[in-house]
Amino acid sequence: MPKKKIRMKVNLPSKHPAKKMKQISQRDRKTRESLIGLADRVVQAAKQRKDPHIDVPSRTLSNVRYSPRKRIIEMGNNTNRRQLFNLSQAKAYMQTMLVASGCKKLVDDGKTTSIRGLFYMLKHTIEGTKEETFSTQDECDPIIEDTEVLLGNLREELHLYAQKRGDMVGPIVLNDSGDQIDCARMGSGGYGIPSIVEPEVVKFVRCDAKFVLHVEKAAVWQRFNEDKFWKKHKCLLTHGNGQPPRGVRRLLHRLHHELELPIYCLLDNDPWGYYIYSVIKQGSINLAYESQRMAIPEARYLGLRSIDLERCGLSESVKITLNENDRKRAKQIVRYPWFEKKRSWQREIKKMLENDFKLEVEALISKDISYVTEEYVPARLRNRDWLD
Amino acid sequence: MPKKKIRMKVNLPSKHPAKKMKQISQRDRKTRESLIGLADRVVQAAKQRKDPHIDVPSRTLSNVRYSPRKRIIEMGNNTNRRQLFNLSQAKAYMQTMLVASGCKKLVDDGKTTSIRGLFYMLKHTIEGTKEETFSTQDECDPIIEDTEVLLGNLREELHLYAQKRGDMVGPIVLNDSGDQIDCARMGSGGYGIPSIVEPEVVKFVRCDAKFVLHVEKAAVWQRFNEDKFWKKHKCLLTHGNGQPPRGVRRLLHRLHHELELPIYCLLDNDPWGYYIYSVIKQGSINLAYESQRMAIPEARYLGLRSIDLERCGLSESVKITLNENDRKRAKQIVRYPWFEKKRSWQREIKKMLENDFKLEVEALISKDISYVTEEYVPARLRNRDWLD
Repeated sequence: MPKKKIRMKVNLPSKHPAKKMKQISQRDRKTRESLIGLADRVVQAAKQRKDPHIDVPSRTLSNVRYSPRKRIIEMGNNTNRRQLFNLSQAKAYMQTMLVASGCKKLVDDGKTTSIRGLFYMLKHTIEGTKEETFSTQDECDPIIEDTEVLLGNLREELHLYAQKRGDMVGPIVLNDSGDQIDCARMGSGGYGIPSIVEPEVVKFVRCDAKFVLHVEKAAVWQRFNEDKFWKKHKCLLTHGNGQPPRGVRRLLHRLHHELELPIYCLLDNDPWGYYIYSVIKQGSINLAYESQRMAIPEARYLGLRSIDLERCGLSESVKITLNENDRKRAKQIVRYPWFEKKRSWQREIKKMLENDFKLEVEALISKDISYVTEEYVPARLRNRDWLD
Repeated sequence: MPKKKIRMKVNLPSKHPAKKMKQISQRDRKTRESLIGLADRVVQAAKQRKDPHIDVPSRTLSNVRYSPRKRIIEMGNNTNRRQLFNLSQAKAYMQTMLVASGCKKLVDDGKTTSIRGLFYMLKHTIEGTKEETFSTQDECDPIIEDTEVLLGNLREELHLYAQKRGDMVGPIVLNDSGDQIDCARMGSGGYGIPSIVEPEVVKFVRCDAKFVLHVEKAAVWQRFNEDKFWKKHKCLLTHGNGQPPRGVRRLLHRLHHELELPIYCLLDNDPWGYYIYSVIKQGSINLAYESQRMAIPEARYLGLRSIDLERCGLSESVKITLNENDRKRAKQIVRYPWFEKKRSWQREIKKMLENDFKLEVEALISKDISYVTEEYVPARLRNRDWLD
């Protein structure tokens, strides 16, 4: 019994322990445990008179693979050993511990910060030397990613957030940090999707939507919102200002898996649009360790399509000629394993290369300002005319 | 009487005239009048067998001046004549009319779009020729700005919006497009400030705030929001993700002038931070024609300051050495007419050049994660320690 008490003390946060312990969520408790586990392993090694080390899963292309069964990009099992008593590894080892201790402080204090904020929290000159813990942000960022994979905790669980970008509107009521938010009554601006949307922060209270329409750009989202598309079609409307940030991807994932909403993506007919779809669907190579909680293999591509110039009778003047980089990217993307076996995607990408031009969603405006909301998307949905 | 009827018909929008006329706001009515006035002048010139022309106020540096009385940057009276029957001006003349007619359609339809959207609306090959109305967005954007100054209508009044960026939280209740929004109950994300915040879209319903704290970056805003600074200090908290976009500047202007809230700006101690302050306060050279409705000469600079490394006892390791561009910009800014006569600003900028380093607001995190919200800003406010 006394032993248990001591154990408890070690786990207690630094300030106002009693108060904070009450507030700490289930998820924060788990994150703390994994952070403390990391520290415990150093103590154990020391007690056993062994060299402390950590095995960091390797975040290289060679350690990433597509799982045809799960239909997501995953990390393999390769790891890199990082030792304290090794001149070339000691700095990275200590930086990893420093990042972990910074995150533990954040979790204990119930506070969050940006990766820039964490960098400043940890940056200092090591006593008695002229050595800086981190000289630049670039040195800190990969260590943060290492810590994520090492602990198996998402950045958001470590109380770090990425830039916020993206909005949502539609018939869903959320509880965000204790405030009830009706996304159908958010004016012209919509609900700004926060960077941390884990269930402890954002709870789904009530949802009358039948699907999610995710569009690429804020301007297109604005068109759909102004035309109250989400009211007519009982859907949620999201955008991520280009490549959706982690918060938006995670929210789409939760909407799909917890509320069983199909996700339709309205993106540009260009390699960048294809790539955004690919990341939403299978995950990205850089953040392969997050696919499990981010990727949505059932996401559907609703357009724009390489056949749309003819199909929709668009003016020739909305065509944008592909540049060398577009062509190169398209040829890479057409060989992605998840596109390689899909005839429809092979046709789509090859047709774009034949066209030698790309089309933005905004090009539909040349027909009529509301053509995209009143004709294009309703027709695609009615005819179940999408790629997946 | 019959004459009046005919006049009415000309003014009616193209679709569902009766329905739309009811909805059209006072401001939209005024915008339509100025757009129609532009077209009327072409008709008048034709009737009088004169060459149609427009006189566009010149948006060049030489036509911009600082008014010491109003304390804002203003446009002078120089104009450039643009004639239809002049080979070198005909294209620009017709493009201006095209932009105006596109905006009229938007106002009539009660719809808004981005400048990208307008570009696509107007882009087409002129019948019987191979000539495009606009070949690229770059050709369209300055014509949009010309149309703004020509008509004396803000872009937002022409139903065009810029990118949305920036959030607000605090004790204010708004009506945004018919939805009541309590900015004190918006969860972790806050109210996303729309790009169009004119009184027809955003109405102030109730406000219990005593001032506005405007911070530069989303991450800093997040810190203040998480620490509920706005509750403790009864203030509104805004950010503009760097240089605030038009919507944020216009909202700050309205909060200051209509609700009489003082505006305090917490920005980085670097030339970019000084410049952001300068734009909020006096307006920018590029958008001088908007100063009247955007600039806030009474805005106050709350920090960071060149004395803060010593004053706050910050670690040497948070210093960022100025680069050549920083030094150049600082030397330009110190000579801005509104800084030139203020001893405090002369000292501030010279001290930064002497320091030869800059400081970001996030650097305060090295003291403590909540130092900025619990110590720095409260002390500045208590001691009325700001620059203006």
